[in-house]
Order: sequence, then C-alpha cells, then structure tokens
Amino acid sequence: MKPNFSLRLRVFNLNCWGIPYLSKHRADRVKRLGDFLNRESFDLALLEEVWSEQDFQYLRQKLLPAYPAAHYFRSGIIGSGLCVFSKHPIQEFTQHVFTLNGYPYMIHHGDWFCGKAVGLLVLHLGGLVLNAYVTHLHAEYNRQKDIYLAHRVAQAWELAQFIHHTSKKADVVLLCGDLNLHPKDLGCRLLKEWTGLHDAFLETRDFKGPEEGCTMVPENCYVNRQELEQFPLGIRIDYVLYKAVSGLYISCKTLRTTTGHEPHSGSPLSDHEALMATLCVRHSPPQHNPSPTHERSPLISVLREAWAELDQGMAQGRWWATIAGYVTGLGLLLLALLCALAAGGEIREVAVLLWTPSVGLVLGAGAFYLFHVQEAKGLCRARAELQHVLGRAREAQDQPALLLGQQEGDRAEEQ
Amino acid sequence: MKPNFSLRLRVFNLNCWGIPYLSKHRADRVKRLGDFLNRESFDLALLEEVWSEQDFQYLRQKLLPAYPAAHYFRSGIIGSGLCVFSKHPIQEFTQHVFTLNGYPYMIHHGDWFCGKAVGLLVLHLGGLVLNAYVTHLHAEYNRQKDIYLAHRVAQAWELAQFIHHTSKKADVVLLCGDLNLHPKDLGCRLLKEWTGLHDAFLETRDFKGPEEGCTMVPENCYVNRQELEQFPLGIRIDYVLYKAVSGLYISCKTLRTTTGHEPHSGSPLSDHEALMATLCVRHSPPQHNPSPTHERSPLISVLREAWAELDQGMAQGRWWATIAGYVTGLGLLLLALLCALAAGGEIREVAVLLWTPSVGLVLGAGAFYLFHVQEAKGLCRARAELQHVLGRAREAQDQPALLLGQQEGDRAEEQ
Repeated sequence: MKPNFSLRLRVFNLNCWGIPYLSKHRADRVKRLGDFLNRESFDLALLEEVWSEQDFQYLRQKLLPAYPAAHYFRSGIIGSGLCVFSKHPIQEFTQHVFTLNGYPYMIHHGDWFCGKAVGLLVLHLGGLVLNAYVTHLHAEYNRQKDIYLAHRVAQAWELAQFIHHTSKKADVVLLCGDLNLHPKDLGCRLLKEWTGLHDAFLETRDFKGPEEGCTMVPENCYVNRQELEQFPLGIRIDYVLYKAVSGLYISCKTLRTTTGHEPHSGSPLSDHEALMATLCVRHSPPQHNPSPTHERSPLISVLREAWAELDQGMAQGRWWATIAGYVTGLGLLLLALLCALAAGGEIREVAVLLWTPSVGLVLGAGAFYLFHVQEAKGLCRARAELQHVLGRAREAQDQPALLLGQQEGDRAEEQ
Repeated sequence: MKPNFSLRLRVFNLNCWGIPYLSKHRADRVKRLGDFLNRESFDLALLEEVWSEQDFQYLRQKLLPAYPAAHYFRSGIIGSGLCVFSKHPIQEFTQHVFTLNGYPYMIHHGDWFCGKAVGLLVLHLGGLVLNAYVTHLHAEYNRQKDIYLAHRVAQAWELAQFIHHTSKKADVVLLCGDLNLHPKDLGCRLLKEWTGLHDAFLETRDFKGPEEGCTMVPENCYVNRQELEQFPLGIRIDYVLYKAVSGLYISCKTLRTTTGHEPHSGSPLSDHEALMATLCVRHSPPQHNPSPTHERSPLISVLREAWAELDQGMAQGRWWATIAGYVTGLGLLLLALLCALAAGGEIREVAVLLWTPSVGLVLGAGAFYLFHVQEAKGLCRARAELQHVLGRAREAQDQPALLLGQQEGDRAEEQ
C-alpha cells in the first residue's frame, strides 16, 4: 500500500419493501431500482426485503454489466430478504441466522417465517480487506408495548458478536441495513458500543436528506402515516455504519438520503428511504489508545441495560413455557376424560365433538411450550455471553493494567 | 514471544452420553468423570452430550479449583449438550447453531430438538491467541440408508465456515468433538480440506489406545454391539484437530484414548472413549507456500462431491415440500366436503368423526411443507457458499497468478 493511498467507496442501502402480492407497485419499483443502480454505479448495493427470489434474479440480470457479483442470502421459510450487488469480485460470503426472531403464532407479523439474518461479504479492494455486512432485524409493531424488544436486543447482540468474531482480520468493516432501531434505542447503542462502529449520519459533514436523517418519512406515499403519528419528522431506522483498523482512517465524505421521492422520476423506490454514502479510507498514523476507563463506562452501562432486558425476556419466556406446560397437562386430562365418556356411551356425540378442540389444545399448547423453552434458552445464551463481556469490561475498568482481551485490541484498532 | 518459546497444551475430549433417565449409571459416571478431570488437571476439557444442565453445574462446582473457567452452550429446546472447563481464563465465547439438524417428526432420534451447535472459546496463552471449538454433529443411525447425510454434510460445511471466518486472527486453532463422521467420510474430508486442520491421531507418533484410534469400541460395555457389527474394531468418530499460523509449529506429542474402561476404576466413563492429547506449539520459520495447484486438487474434488450431495438433498427436500403441499390442499378440500356433509345433516356423525383426522392432516402436512421448504433453503444456502468456493478454487488452479482469496492466506498460515 502506498503512503498516499486512498480508497473511495460508494455504498447504497435500501429496504426494498418487496412483499409479493402485498407491496404496492412492486414490479415497477424493482424495475426503477435497477435503472437507478445502473445509472449510479455504486461499489456496493445492499438491499433488504427482497422477499421474492424472482425479483433478485431480475435485478441480477439487469445489473450484471455494472455489478458483476451478486448474492442472495437464503434462510428460514420465506428467506432473509437480504441481497447484495457488487462492482468488485466477492471473495467470500457467509451468513448467520438469528436464533430468536419473534413468534411463529404471530402469523400476521410474519417475521418468524422469514429467518432474519446477517450476511457477510469479504471483498479485497486496493490491497485492503473489506468485511461488508447486511442485515435486517425484527420489526417494531408497537413501540409503547413492544413484545419483541428482548428478541431485538438479542438480535443486536448476535449481530454485534458475529461482526466482532468474523472481522478480526478485516481492515475496513461496513454494516448496512434496516435495524428497526432508533438511534438511541438499546439495541443500537449495544451494537455500536460492542463493535465500535461509527454512524455515517452522525460522522459526515455533508448530509443531504430528510431532517435528522430519517429513513421513513411522512412525505413518502407508501408510508402508513398513522405509524409515524408520534414522529412528525419520521424515524431513522436504516443505517450505514463503519470502522477501520489502526493505521487507517475512514470517513464519510457525503451521505445522501432520498426524501420520499425517487431522485429522478419523483415516485419513491420503497416505503423506506435509500441511503447513499461515499466513504473514504486513507492512511493515518496509529492513534493513542484512549483511556480504557473513560472508554468502558458507556459499554458497561449499555451491557447492564441489555442484560436486564434479556433477563426480563427470559423470565417471561419461562413463564409462558410454564403456563403452556400446565395447559398441555390439562388438555391431556380432558382427552382422557373424553375417551372415557365416549367409551361409556353416555354423551357420546358431545365427547366426539369435543375431541377435535382437545387434540388441538394439547398439540397447540405443547408446541407453545417447546417454543418458549427454546426462546428462554436463546435469551439465556445471549445473557451469558453479555454477562461475560460485562465481567471482563468491569475487571478492565477496575484494573486497567489487566487489559488482556480482544475488546482492547478492537478499541485500539478503531480509527 | 521469546525465540525458544514453547507451549504445552493438554486437552481432554469426551462425548459423555448424559441423557437423563436413559443413559445408564449417569450420575456415577459424571462423578467419576469429575474425579478423573480433577486428578489429571488438563488445560482444557471439552465435553459433548452433557444434556442435563444440572450435570454441568455439578461438574462446575466439583472442578472449580482445577478449572476456574467453564461454560455451558445453551441452544435449541434440549440444548447443544456442549460444555467446556478450562484451567485458563476464557477471554471470549460464542456459538453457532447449525441451520439444519434433522427432522422434528423423527422424535425417536431427537437430534432436531437438541439444537446441535459449535461453541467457540478464545483463550490467550503465553502471548498466543487460541481459538478452541467444540462441536457435536447429527448422529448417524443407519449407515446404509442415511437420511441425514445431506444435513451432516451441511453441518460440516457450516462448521468449517464458522471456523474459517472466526479464526482469522487466531494463532492456534483447536477443534474437538464428536463429528459422527468416520475419517474418510465426505463431511470429515470437507472440514479438513476447507479449514486445513490436522488430525491428532494421524499426526502423532505416540498414540496409545484402541486399534485405528477408534472412539466407539465393542469392548465398552455401554456400546450397542449390533451397531458395530460391520466394524469389528470399532469406529473413530471423535476427533482432536488443530492447526497453527505461519511462524508457529504445532504437533501432537501424545494421544491417549481410553479403551472401553476408565483408566483407574476400570468401568467406562461413557459409551464413547475419551481423547487426551498433549499438543506442543513452538516457533518455526515460515515455510514455503506449497504449490497451490497441487494443494487445491483434493479441495476441488471434495467440494464437488459435497456440492452433489447437497444438491441431491435439496431436490429431495423440494420433493417432500411438493408432496406435502398437495396433501395440504387435498386435506383442505376434504375439510370443506365434511363441512358440507355435516351441514346437510345426512351422514353427520361420520362427518364429525372424520373432522379430527382431517384437521390433523391439514396441520401436519402444512407443518411438513413449511419444514421442508426451510430445509431446501438451508441446503441451497450451503450449496451456494460451496459453489462460490469451488469456483474460486478452480480459478486459482487454472490461473495460479490470480491467487487473491483468503484460502491462500489460510494455506500459507498453516504450519
């Protein structure tokens, strides 16, 4: 690498709102997205909610000349909805499907069936190793009474851990996606604190787009305005986050966000706004490692907060499992009773009529029980990982001389 | 690190056969395992099939003085069964649960309910970063007609990918566990070729244990001899695998395997044999990168073989999904017909009697459909990753000058 080395990276991110049969003007929007991406020729285009593989294949064909490399991340029953198009060869890719992702019986929300995940691409650009991640976390349907909060925090933690453990040799780390988290939400703070990623919107000096960088705005004709009632300006839930290792300096030169209209035709590409960032990576002398005590405080406090949230979710999961266990037991008793009545021949028709709902009750409650046992285990696992990191962060705060872990390395490596 | 640096690592691995209520003499064996581990004082003890968390907690208490660090990897409904005890502090840990792990309707096999996984520990020993992995893959119930083969190959691939992507900054990589794979099985070759891990049994000059290093032997009183009918000496399915980065040399000084009897009391600790390896890590001058063409051939051939296996599994998964889709449709038609008959009042009792099995049919076939759609997606995902690696390996073989990828780095880094 030459001393005056500099790498310019143009990145595009969009939650495409591509639900077959449900999303309005899907085919037209996908076509216009393809035209737009071809015109702009980004280095990387990272997309979410491309639920139909046909849409991906259509884009792949259309974008082939400008983006020779592409990948669709398959998972779950419906899919992860994630895909990428790259101007540069993709060296490697893999994915991690989140352990917890809502409830199968919340069919109208559908997240559980999607297999939400984080996709990883490894690219080699100008002698640098770039790890690019694309993700989409569980949606937030009710901010006041969010039954998915613990799952989203667990997903943010798994995402942070996946990045932490897979990016140790990367020079530049990039994360794009729809986090379904507001900037000050617990999951977002946890992710940033543990990975050390920087927020393009907060870092750039040249931002053009809706006020406060919102990526779901009331001006967008596809947005349900009722959902934004409490947020007259809109909400910011889509992100471009990045970091570079020590010796490199990464900055966001410009960040553009669509404003409810497609830049050229005026009609929006999705119900979310697209993010277009120009990042610049260049040499920088390794900086002084900031005081760990000072650095660790926000990490410790956010870890504590996340621990409490996961703990509460775990208790709730166990409670539901217990209730479901009792209901299963009662259902089995009822079934035995019905069998006896039917055999006795007394109220045979009633017994036969009640047979179906009883079997349904046993099977339903049994499945509910198993699901919540698994949920509690998943939350317990995340809590254990978090607790370990918390313990080590506290040790390091108390005895800065005992700085042994990876986290120190990571911190030092951030620009 | 001093030039005459040398690290000695004593590692223990055992599949503990700890199924509550089912495994014979479980409490006694766990107690004796604890005594043995305390006596021997290994650096790391990696255990599989510790299905009961109470067993883990019992061992944790018992081993606390000799192994101050421990972790139990929770996942799925029952758990992963994996746990570790370490003499040295654990810097970090995380886990990856395999996407595919058998079929929920094969209740008597139970693997699906376990949430089989790979656990990762990061340790800092003598200035080196050690990534230790522990895993347990899907069991093989019928070697002649193995319906889980595609799943096990997919698991071996996910395991290899997880190690590949999380160990890029590790100086030493160690993998222990019950792979449920014979040494020449596709999954085992795939894992070794893609990660570059070496097999302690094949590498050591000082082995003591059953012939051919078998880890399930007919001499063990807990082993079902019928299962070993075709293998009079036993089978080797538990492994200690390792590698080190360039500049380091790792070797297996000694490998001891129990021989169907516990070393002291004579009664076996489990139906599997325990592996005890003494590894030695020392400095070594970076070696010449072996000819990539020569190196790549076995990788390409094993990738091709795995691709074909996953492809076949995928076709089968899709076939089952199609069948289940039709059955669901037929079940719905039958339900509609029964409703009409019951409303007409003609053969009401028969209609009511058939109601339960019809609802069961629709729900069962529907769940079967969703499961196999997800299975096909999971296999398709693994196949896509594999295909990409295969493409790049072929490119590199055809044009050795175009060596761009990680794989080269990995190869060069192995001792």
